[in-house]
Amino acid sequence: MARTVVTSEKKKVVIGFDEPFCVIGERINPTGRKKLAEMMKNGDYSMVEADAVAQVAAGAMMLDVNAGIPLADEPRILAETIQLVQSIVDVPLSIDSSIIDALEAGLAVYKGQALVNSVTGEEESLERVLPLVKKYDASVVAISNDETGISMDPDVRYAVAKKIVEHAADHGISKDRVVVDPLVMPIGALNAAGKQAFTLIRRLREELGVNTTCGASNISFGIPNRHAMNAHFLSMAACAGMTSAIMNPLHKEEMDGVRAANTLNGVDPDCRAWLTANRAPAPEGAEGEGGRRERRRRRGGAA
Amino acid sequence: MARTVVTSEKKKVVIGFDEPFCVIGERINPTGRKKLAEMMKNGDYSMVEADAVAQVAAGAMMLDVNAGIPLADEPRILAETIQLVQSIVDVPLSIDSSIIDALEAGLAVYKGQALVNSVTGEEESLERVLPLVKKYDASVVAISNDETGISMDPDVRYAVAKKIVEHAADHGISKDRVVVDPLVMPIGALNAAGKQAFTLIRRLREELGVNTTCGASNISFGIPNRHAMNAHFLSMAACAGMTSAIMNPLHKEEMDGVRAANTLNGVDPDCRAWLTANRAPAPEGAEGEGGRRERRRRRGGAA
Repeated sequence: MARTVVTSEKKKVVIGFDEPFCVIGERINPTGRKKLAEMMKNGDYSMVEADAVAQVAAGAMMLDVNAGIPLADEPRILAETIQLVQSIVDVPLSIDSSIIDALEAGLAVYKGQALVNSVTGEEESLERVLPLVKKYDASVVAISNDETGISMDPDVRYAVAKKIVEHAADHGISKDRVVVDPLVMPIGALNAAGKQAFTLIRRLREELGVNTTCGASNISFGIPNRHAMNAHFLSMAACAGMTSAIMNPLHKEEMDGVRAANTLNGVDPDCRAWLTANRAPAPEGAEGEGGRRERRRRRGGAA
Repeated sequence: MARTVVTSEKKKVVIGFDEPFCVIGERINPTGRKKLAEMMKNGDYSMVEADAVAQVAAGAMMLDVNAGIPLADEPRILAETIQLVQSIVDVPLSIDSSIIDALEAGLAVYKGQALVNSVTGEEESLERVLPLVKKYDASVVAISNDETGISMDPDVRYAVAKKIVEHAADHGISKDRVVVDPLVMPIGALNAAGKQAFTLIRRLREELGVNTTCGASNISFGIPNRHAMNAHFLSMAACAGMTSAIMNPLHKEEMDGVRAANTLNGVDPDCRAWLTANRAPAPEGAEGEGGRRERRRRRGGAA
């Protein structure tokens, strides 16, 4: 029963087998977002701020923060971004970088127990990232590739995940604190990508006993109607046992997938979250903007 | 490796573990459709005809045919409906009635090997339906309830399914010819309905080795945004191992769920079915109605 506890100053999120699926908002990431990259590089965090607020409003339970901008001072920008995001939203963060100094700069300013994104099965990564995770009492995303690259054989990917969990234990990090990313391939390039992912997720859960996550939208790269494919990948992966994903919460279709999976997996008591997210709009006038304004006025008058 | 073969005169459909999910169109059923009931009772099958054509066009691989109209001559109407449907579409049929005489009348006129819907675990049903299934070399939907009703305990439902499979074997019907309906409860009434269904489906597949089906829309009874919930129930159930469903193929959301599940389960080679169903509309003019007409004319001219 893996329970990965991630916290901010005010909030605690548990990624776990019998918890609602943890939606980690992916938007604060300048990769492929030229304008955001330019703004962050120049110290303008207004778009970061908007992305943070919008993702939490849409249902993100955590936010991933990445500041990977070519030729920029990534450690400083990542630390500044984290401080800004923590000043405007309460959710815990995933600190996302492939540069160790940036991870350390982010962890140093982070308030709470973060999720470090990520460590791989490569020796250098293991030896440099895991001590940081331990030092800051954080959790870590473990990506199941190593020096040989990403194996097309799911058994090898499982073995790499197992190796990372063992190395983490050697550093005093329990497997509760390791969230494995089984690496999801595009279904348009590899027909077995879905089945492989589901099998690997189930094995990671049942045999290795760890939480899992992934970059969900990768599955639909290059094919049409991506949101529907992403949404069904999410619900099917949740059915196979996946407990979180790094994803775009601004898309209703994907969030419907996560919420339906929670309801059908029995972790949405009385369908409350489903009902709240899908409440039918009230009849014209009764609950429209005018009606709401009217009530607000009345309430104001009574105060 | 269950393989349930259902045929019409011209088509063979295999419901199976490594086959595309079998969509059984549910529309030809007067239950709760007053107008259809009235028309069928009066020998007007025009709506049946439209429902048959539309469902096949939308992707149904089989059609369920039900003629349960109170105070009507169900055996005659069911037989007539089946003959009509077989005269206009090629897909195999599921012959759906709780009245033995109606099942027999339907089977007597059916061309091919039908799916009989259904037998229950009740002694009378077993003793009357199974000989018919054997006589007409058909397959049968086995509903996992018995004299004591529908158990809320999934272990009891599994045991009932096992009993039906054993009785079928006693009648010379192999378990390949039994498609179990684990009975799906509304998630709004029973929070565990989804999880129970997935667990039961997996067990029926892995332990009992049978195909499964269900009336999919029951899961969303009474809650909002039903199509999204149905769609994710379908893909998640397919992920858990369900191989068919009696459902409404006219809803794109549900069909997206089935097609995404096929793609992600690795039974849609090169994503061909997904691409066909979700091809981006061509630019204005190039592939519009006008363009198509134009080409048809040109082709006509060349012929």
